[in-house]
Amino acid sequence: MAEAGVEVGAKGAEAASRVDADALSTALGVLRQRFGDRLQTGEALRRQHGHTLTWIENQPPDAVLFVETAAEVSDIVGIAATHRIPLIPFGAGTSLEGHVNAPSGGISLDFSRMNRLLRVNERDLDCVVEPGISRAELNAQLRDTGLFFPVDPGAETATLGGMASTRASGTSAVRYGTMRENVLNVTAVMADGKVFRSASRARKSAAGYDLTRLLVGAEGTLGIITELTVRLYGVPEVILAAVCRFKSLEGACNTVIQAIQLGGFGLARVELIDEMQIRAINTHSKTNFAEAPTLFLEFHGSKAAADDGIAQFKELADTEGALDYQWAEAEADRRRLWKARHEAYFSVKTTWPGKDVLATDVCVPISRLADCVLETQADIAATGLIAPIAGHAGDGNFHCSVVLDVHDATERKSVEGFLKRLAQRALDMDGTCTGEHGVGQGKMAYLSAEHGAGVDVMRQIKHSLDPLGIFNPGKIVL
Amino acid sequence: MAEAGVEVGAKGAEAASRVDADALSTALGVLRQRFGDRLQTGEALRRQHGHTLTWIENQPPDAVLFVETAAEVSDIVGIAATHRIPLIPFGAGTSLEGHVNAPSGGISLDFSRMNRLLRVNERDLDCVVEPGISRAELNAQLRDTGLFFPVDPGAETATLGGMASTRASGTSAVRYGTMRENVLNVTAVMADGKVFRSASRARKSAAGYDLTRLLVGAEGTLGIITELTVRLYGVPEVILAAVCRFKSLEGACNTVIQAIQLGGFGLARVELIDEMQIRAINTHSKTNFAEAPTLFLEFHGSKAAADDGIAQFKELADTEGALDYQWAEAEADRRRLWKARHEAYFSVKTTWPGKDVLATDVCVPISRLADCVLETQADIAATGLIAPIAGHAGDGNFHCSVVLDVHDATERKSVEGFLKRLAQRALDMDGTCTGEHGVGQGKMAYLSAEHGAGVDVMRQIKHSLDPLGIFNPGKIVL
Repeated sequence: MAEAGVEVGAKGAEAASRVDADALSTALGVLRQRFGDRLQTGEALRRQHGHTLTWIENQPPDAVLFVETAAEVSDIVGIAATHRIPLIPFGAGTSLEGHVNAPSGGISLDFSRMNRLLRVNERDLDCVVEPGISRAELNAQLRDTGLFFPVDPGAETATLGGMASTRASGTSAVRYGTMRENVLNVTAVMADGKVFRSASRARKSAAGYDLTRLLVGAEGTLGIITELTVRLYGVPEVILAAVCRFKSLEGACNTVIQAIQLGGFGLARVELIDEMQIRAINTHSKTNFAEAPTLFLEFHGSKAAADDGIAQFKELADTEGALDYQWAEAEADRRRLWKARHEAYFSVKTTWPGKDVLATDVCVPISRLADCVLETQADIAATGLIAPIAGHAGDGNFHCSVVLDVHDATERKSVEGFLKRLAQRALDMDGTCTGEHGVGQGKMAYLSAEHGAGVDVMRQIKHSLDPLGIFNPGKIVL
Repeated sequence: MAEAGVEVGAKGAEAASRVDADALSTALGVLRQRFGDRLQTGEALRRQHGHTLTWIENQPPDAVLFVETAAEVSDIVGIAATHRIPLIPFGAGTSLEGHVNAPSGGISLDFSRMNRLLRVNERDLDCVVEPGISRAELNAQLRDTGLFFPVDPGAETATLGGMASTRASGTSAVRYGTMRENVLNVTAVMADGKVFRSASRARKSAAGYDLTRLLVGAEGTLGIITELTVRLYGVPEVILAAVCRFKSLEGACNTVIQAIQLGGFGLARVELIDEMQIRAINTHSKTNFAEAPTLFLEFHGSKAAADDGIAQFKELADTEGALDYQWAEAEADRRRLWKARHEAYFSVKTTWPGKDVLATDVCVPISRLADCVLETQADIAATGLIAPIAGHAGDGNFHCSVVLDVHDATERKSVEGFLKRLAQRALDMDGTCTGEHGVGQGKMAYLSAEHGAGVDVMRQIKHSLDPLGIFNPGKIVL
């Protein structure tokens, strides 16, 4: 996005020519014969399968196909390869950078019918799922086991396949890691139609290239995930939530840095919320948090460890200018506190009604988090924008929810400049242009600045594994 | 190894023809002019840079070149590409599967002069190092910072570059993860001579393919690592060590499984040692541990958390048939206990003097660890072998130190059969043929059984990124 985003859109359109109309028509005929009304071409459904969540233009696929098995996906890949038809895997459509758009046309493979929890291996703390299962549904089905799947990117409907493909993370990554750490293996269909599993269920392996990590975060451009094994964790004995207001943003960041240096204190979530975001939360959730830099915290562990962790955290925070604390142990109280945080994105919509909201993220080494947020706040003020900030402080990752009218060319131009400066600021601090949203179409323009010759390596891999360019073309690299 | 190993040796020799003598002579001339006596061709040095630690035949390189900068490595890659000369990166030579052998000849790139700790980022808990630094040296240089690098594959001299390349792990992986989790980025020279850094220092990123994880574990076959950033951890407030003897191996494994389900109790090491390995340790270290299945444990954390963890662990262990405990908190006492474990490999050498010792490893889902070890012990007994077992119980990973005379063809054949059955047993239990030793030459034969069509994917990546096959040929895939 940003000026760069516009540039990319243009570049993408040039390079990714539309699929050939005759080839498409032939392929759809073959698929309709095989799949009947599981192949849909209605405009509303196609648009719903294009990108909708940010200002990136909706580029609907030519058809939507509801798949049910890996064998079907393999056959579909064969047909798509014969006719050079792009295939775009689709989970819940909650991605933010145009990942599910179809700039060259093609077929959206909808995984909503492949949504089963196939097996729970309680003693191994893992489970095998189909890619279309949502994280909320997975945790609902796990409830009786005393286990849970921790990765929490926000959207309840986000599917495990989509989360793996975008290397999702979210609030709990500081303790449990991202999808990178929590996917043990994927089964994938490659461009030649072959189905393979990237690894065993062993917790670690030194048996060759790390194909699991290659497919996690590949956004469906190298292979199509049809099954995955993910790590589970025992539900902690105690979960304690707290909200802690600080005199300064530096104080909040310093507290987090020291807490992590001292082993983490059992911190499972540590969210930094700026003044403007607090105001939006108050408006939306009818809360009355004081408008100050604030940490939302959650501690997981045994009762003794959690109490100990909190005591140690409080000692640090007091030294760093903590003003006050609210604690919650009962589930209802915890939910009330965290509901406010989880609705941060929607709170922005409520607070500035009638406006569009564009979510972006960057991630920097944690030592630079305060600098990066403060410089960004100053940029927001100087540019005259409204853009509340909420961040996963333990990871150095933060989001801006930029309020704008996407149809106002002047506002749009101003936001584009801001986004470009934000990405560059993160890169200058030895960070990344996206900590968890992914590249999709929106961040392709920043990859060269971030990876240099690494982009050539990515391109070599892409062309080697998908020589016909049928897997989600126009994303990550061309 | 195994029948398979023999097969692979033959396959490797066929496929990997010797480097052309004229081309080699020309290339060495060019390199000698540039690097003077940093290029060495003496036989002793060359043999020392070939594989020595197991029964895999020593295949020395044609020359050894002591490199000093990434720019030099890039130039050397250019010269090697021009003349099609294999390059084999060399750290300390402590790998176990023939990783540093030169089956096609070529040049060993010795990184011992690139061994600097370049920068410690204390607030970010990371540091930037050259690949030739050993883990012991790194931790010695970190001492005053209160931070440490946790990955501990056993060998003190193992270099960070070698550890990254083989995706090393070891005793502390149950808590701190393996090199997969602890390398934030690598700088690498690719086959076209380009130097790139695989990622920023941000803790997480969704910016494109995970090139870091692709190079970690690639054993120098895709690119040559010239710098890396690794994660550090605060030295824990308290370290408590314990040795806990069990009635049965299942009881020991069940205790570990439950401890991990309940959040780990601060366990940073949990090593399973079988009766035969205890006997060897007693012989070598003059200890008098009872010959029973035993867990060596280490707890890291705050005083309160460690005490709490130990109390909870003891409660579980008592239920599962723990017979007795020895505790140690003082550093000298801890070192004494753990010294015994760390010298497990050498203890086998001492106990069966004059014999060769072949170290191998497999890794299974933890629920199958007891089964896999018990079946392996039965196989050892039935085959008439001596092969003590020591394992990283928290990861489901264990080692057999097989005692044999490598020059006795009958013994050798018998061991080959055992190794093949061991790998197959791990695969049948949804495990891997190597949890941490890597593929090298020794485990190439098992890759198809483990990865199926995944081996084709690996091969596509290899041929795409190293089209001339100059990077450590004859390892992982041909």
